Parts: sequence; C-alpha cells; structure tokens
Amino acid sequence: MSAFLAIDWGTTNLRGWRVNADGDVEARIQLPCGVSKLAKGEAQSLFEDELIPRLAADDAPALLCGMIGSTIGWRVAPYAPCPAGAADIARLLVKLDARRGPAMLVPGLRCDGFAGASDVMRGEETQALGWIALDEPYRGAGRHILCLPGTHSKWVLIEDGRIHHFITAMTGELFDILRKHSVLAGDGADDAAAFAEGLDAAGRGDALSARLFSARARVVADDKDAATTASYLSGLLIGAEIAALPGLLGVSAGQTAHVIGDDALAARYAAALARRGWAAQVHSGETCVISGLRLLAREAGLI
Amino acid sequence: MSAFLAIDWGTTNLRGWRVNADGDVEARIQLPCGVSKLAKGEAQSLFEDELIPRLAADDAPALLCGMIGSTIGWRVAPYAPCPAGAADIARLLVKLDARRGPAMLVPGLRCDGFAGASDVMRGEETQALGWIALDEPYRGAGRHILCLPGTHSKWVLIEDGRIHHFITAMTGELFDILRKHSVLAGDGADDAAAFAEGLDAAGRGDALSARLFSARARVVADDKDAATTASYLSGLLIGAEIAALPGLLGVSAGQTAHVIGDDALAARYAAALARRGWAAQVHSGETCVISGLRLLAREAGLI
Repeated sequence: MSAFLAIDWGTTNLRGWRVNADGDVEARIQLPCGVSKLAKGEAQSLFEDELIPRLAADDAPALLCGMIGSTIGWRVAPYAPCPAGAADIARLLVKLDARRGPAMLVPGLRCDGFAGASDVMRGEETQALGWIALDEPYRGAGRHILCLPGTHSKWVLIEDGRIHHFITAMTGELFDILRKHSVLAGDGADDAAAFAEGLDAAGRGDALSARLFSARARVVADDKDAATTASYLSGLLIGAEIAALPGLLGVSAGQTAHVIGDDALAARYAAALARRGWAAQVHSGETCVISGLRLLAREAGLI
Repeated sequence: MSAFLAIDWGTTNLRGWRVNADGDVEARIQLPCGVSKLAKGEAQSLFEDELIPRLAADDAPALLCGMIGSTIGWRVAPYAPCPAGAADIARLLVKLDARRGPAMLVPGLRCDGFAGASDVMRGEETQALGWIALDEPYRGAGRHILCLPGTHSKWVLIEDGRIHHFITAMTGELFDILRKHSVLAGDGADDAAAFAEGLDAAGRGDALSARLFSARARVVADDKDAATTASYLSGLLIGAEIAALPGLLGVSAGQTAHVIGDDALAARYAAALARRGWAAQVHSGETCVISGLRLLAREAGLI
C-alpha cells in the first residue's frame, strides 16, 4: 500500500488528510469550502491548486466522499443500493478527471424509505464502513446500530459487515430553523434540566408537531424561563429521534448504540440515549471517515 | 338583548363586527393590525379611535377574543382551566378600561399537555363554543371532535357542551419555516397528486423528523419534480397531524371531524380527513367566532 489523500467534502466544510502506508495521518487541512459555497468548476481548481500543494501530496491517489459527489458537487457519483459492503461500494467509485494523480469519488447510498420514497446518504456510508474496519473481527459479524448526529442525522443498521438499511432524520435542521425563525426563537445557555425535560416530553416520538408546541406553552402558561427553550427543544427533537428511529430499523430499544461524531452534539446524543435506556458508545467521526476511505481505497486497488 | 361589537383580534389580523339584537351582522371591518404589529398602548387607541367609529358602534358593549388577551396584547386575560363551558368562561371575562361603552376580554384556555407541560389556546375556545351554540340541542350533548387548522392547529374534544380537552400542533408554522428556510425550500403550484403522496407518507404520524426528509429524498433520488415539494410537504404535515392528534384526545379515527375555518386550508384538511377515512364537515370560522362572542356576551349579561 502507498500513501493517499483522504477527503471528506461535505455541504459546509472540507476536511483532508494525507495518510501514509501505515494508515497514519501525516498532514491535515480543514477549509470552510463545502460544496454549497462553490461556484461551478471551482471544486477541481480548489482540489488541484490548493489541496494537493498544501497537503504536499504530489501524485498520491485521492479518494473523496460526501456531497462532493452530488449534483452540486464536482461530479455526480450515483447512489449505490443497500445492502452494501465495502466491496460493493468500491466497485462503484467514480473516476475524476484530475490533473495530478488518480482521484475517485465514493458514491452515496440509497435504500427504501417511507411510502415508496427513497432515503439517501452521502459521506456517512464511508464513516459506517470505517467504523466496521476499525474493529473488523468483532464488527464484521452480527447486527450493530450506528447513530450519526447532524443536520440530517442518520441511523444505520449494520448486518454482517454490510450497511443493511438506514433512516435519515432532519433533527439538526429542524432545531436550527425553529430556533431562528419560529415562535420558539431565542438563545440561551445550555440547561441540563430543560434538556432532560424536553427528552421526557418527546414520549414515544409520535405527534412531534404537537409536542413542539409544548416548548411554547411551558413558557407562556407554566412560567418557565424562555432562556431554557433552546435546551428543551434540543431534548425534545433528539428524544423524538431516539424514540422513533431504531424501531423503524427493526431494532428494539435498550441495546448498544454507537454514536459517531466529534463535537458536543455526539456527547449530547450519548446522554440522551443513556437517559432512554441505551448503552451509548461515542466514536470519533474523523477516525471513522479516514478508516473508511482507506478501506475503500484498498478495496479499489487505489493504494 | 342589544346590539354589540364582536371582535376577534389575533396575532396577524383583527376582525370586528357590529351584531344587532337578532344576531345579524350589520357592519364589519378587517384590519392587518394583529397584536404582533402593535406598539405598546396602541391597542386601546386603535379600538377607540378607529374600530368604534368605523363600525358606528357608539356605546354598544364590546367583547374581544384572541391574542389581544395575551402578554403582547391590550391586557392579560389569564387562562381558564379545562373542562370549560360558556358559563365557566363568561365568569372569567376581564374588564377593559375603555372610554366608550363596556368592553371585555375573553380569557384563553389551558389544559394538561405533554409530560407535565400545559397546552394553551386563545380565540379558538370562542369558535368552539360558537360552533356548539349554532346547533345547541344537537351539539350540547355527547362527544364531538373539532379541528381548527392554522399556524397552530387545534384539535378540540367537546363533551356535553363543554370544551373537555384540546391539543395544539405547530403544523402551519412548520410548513412555513420549512418552505422558507430549509433544504425543502421552494415554491410550486398546488399539486393534488403530490399532496396525496405526502398524506400517505405520513403513516401513523410517528417519526416526523425522518418522514420530512423523504420530501428531499424523493427529489434527489427518485427524480420527482422539486416544484411538487411544497404540496408533498403540506400533505405530509397535515397527514401526520390527522394520524396522531385524535388518538391523543382519546378519539379513534374514522368518525366525524368538524373543521372550522374559512380559507382553502379548511378544504385541504377536509380532503385529507376524507382520504384517511374520516367524515369531515367544514364550518365557517367567522360564523363560529361571532356565535361564540354572542353566546359569551349573553352569558355575562353584557347584552
């Protein structure tokens, strides 16, 4: 195996790593240049003129995952169908016309969603495969449930080393727009008691549009401090997600959920899972995505 | 009985009617002067210097309902507890210091909501009582379920002529902010097929944050026209409300739901209810609120 460039290019940010033959990170870069901020054609020049020189990657092969493979990215990498393991996905990598070294895109994943609609992901499939590869003998067998919190949270069911099925929830985006644009608008410091109150008010995760109004009613009728609304709302939305999504994947509550993420949000999900009777384990999103890109690069013979 | 002024003063608009002793409307006014747009103290001057002269109401008694009785209105009329009938609410009218004629505020209603939080309404209690009064011998007995669509939709359980319990859903507000500020943003003409598709995707009304993402996935993965997203989203949100809320009121699906409202939204709810096996009857919101204000004015001895 040789060194390679691992790149996670999402909607908002771009993260890249030069990874040596042993899998160690030798250089890293993070830029606020997500695909939602790129002009047409800008992805390629950013890659060739900025990323490659700054990571001193010369002609090393590169593998890119995330929204860079979407219609608003560099080039479209069509969705692979579920269930899918590393070998399935590696077969569907899309070659990029880059001036330096071979460069390939990881496809997104698609599975059946609600009432005949599909569900989709881009980027999280690489983290999920990377999570398996980090502990292959154990995670390569049996059923595991992963939770990847974010703007669009993903719950992923792993069976025998493959991504069997997944569900997306717009939890992070709902939190964001409700706090900015609704009758629940307002800021406030983290409040653990209000967060727990919101978690409990989530109930079975049903009737969310009604439960949301409790965030308003508790202030106007119950004299709760409006500065605690954001924490209550966070608990309510995360609680509703945890209450409803595992069941839709055919998983009963109270097992082990593996949370993949790097920020305070992952810790918040772990706390919420624990309060609802799950055993939560948090894993680094960065470690998982690098592991997944290395696995796919190896499967594809890129390194 | 004498003539009186009936006023429904909400967040966005103000509607007023001069109602004669027989209950007929003799004059009407509608102004875009909801309480969210008023400066401090402006409510009283608007009432005395604009409404009274324009409705030629002189010293007729006036009864006001809606958000005008909230903390951002003219004066606070504390919430009455459920269950409540016309006599209970009439006892809690709040007198206003108006320069011309007696004027009183209708209190809002409060009931138990989720996980110890309250639920609240202001204005809809008057419409609900008015709906009962329009057909007193029939509606004064038994159980009836009312649906009042809007920014904050209300589902109301009537038992033996009193408001027994209710639930609020932020359906209209969610539709609004999702269309304006989220990844589901965009406009499009009404599309009946996409509306029905969204209704079906609402399922049992659970996992709403996940079902919402299907509005995105059906476009990026299933090649549905993005111009149909708004109609799909409308169906999904209304469908989730209809699937989840009646059960929380202890009412099983498939009965008669009385929809109170004047606009296209009421017709949309009626269509959604019919598709989900309900018998829907639409009633004029204007007729109901005038009927309710007249009933309360009579109960309080104001007319």
